[in-house]
Amino acid sequence: MVSELPSLTLKAIGTVHSEIKQPVRRQSKDIVSEIEVDKDLTEALDNLDEFSHIIVIYWMHQRRGPAPKKVRPMGNPENSLMGVLATRSPARPNPVGKATVRLLQRRDNILKVKGLDAIDGTPVIDIKPYIPGYDSVKNARVPSWVKKQ
Amino acid sequence: MVSELPSLTLKAIGTVHSEIKQPVRRQSKDIVSEIEVDKDLTEALDNLDEFSHIIVIYWMHQRRGPAPKKVRPMGNPENSLMGVLATRSPARPNPVGKATVRLLQRRDNILKVKGLDAIDGTPVIDIKPYIPGYDSVKNARVPSWVKKQ
Repeated sequence: MVSELPSLTLKAIGTVHSEIKQPVRRQSKDIVSEIEVDKDLTEALDNLDEFSHIIVIYWMHQRRGPAPKKVRPMGNPENSLMGVLATRSPARPNPVGKATVRLLQRRDNILKVKGLDAIDGTPVIDIKPYIPGYDSVKNARVPSWVKKQ
Repeated sequence: MVSELPSLTLKAIGTVHSEIKQPVRRQSKDIVSEIEVDKDLTEALDNLDEFSHIIVIYWMHQRRGPAPKKVRPMGNPENSLMGVLATRSPARPNPVGKATVRLLQRRDNILKVKGLDAIDGTPVIDIKPYIPGYDSVKNARVPSWVKKQ
């Protein structure tokens, strides 16, 4: 039984600096942006650049109001309404985003990354190294609307 | 400049029910556990079972005290001290975990999953479908200590 679901408080560990200033649907694959990590955590970033890719967990701070239970994925009106947790829509119960990006450079507390879809000013919650054995699945099954995108 | 890093509050959307009762270092690959999602979000889980794998973002609620800046990965004393954000150690600034697991079954608000390393009672923050195009990287580079595990 879920008796009582707790409220959880965390503190951002950094901020995204990006040319993307507003939430827009666009390809972020080639966008280069920077994550400025709390200076107190500079040492905690040591060795991160031994990995080619990192996972960024971030807070979609511009989301407002209650999340819908159903959405049309990718904002595409031709897609059927689906459970929001079966999509990657930012309109989620907790506005937490996850991106896997290329780490181009680490300079002290600044990470230069490629492919981050978070907008300028986004608070960063966590940074993890991308490890294929944990993070990658071979032959995962996905529905057809994903393949069509 | 990071002028001020915000505190963020979120509410758990569910709870893990697992045979793992204490944080122990063990293979979780074959463990079957259940995520009981808030009943109010049952509809938000529709269509999730069209995916073979899901990403679970969770709160490592048994972590206590300030996180170290450096750790020896995998608790292995033979590994050098490394920046904690360059490892998957649970002793992170924000105790947020991410697991990619197989979705065995969805029954109303209950998800039966395989391979979740979260212990019994763990609050779940978010559930996302695993989409290879977003979540998987080909030919990612990792340091040698990862390969040796």
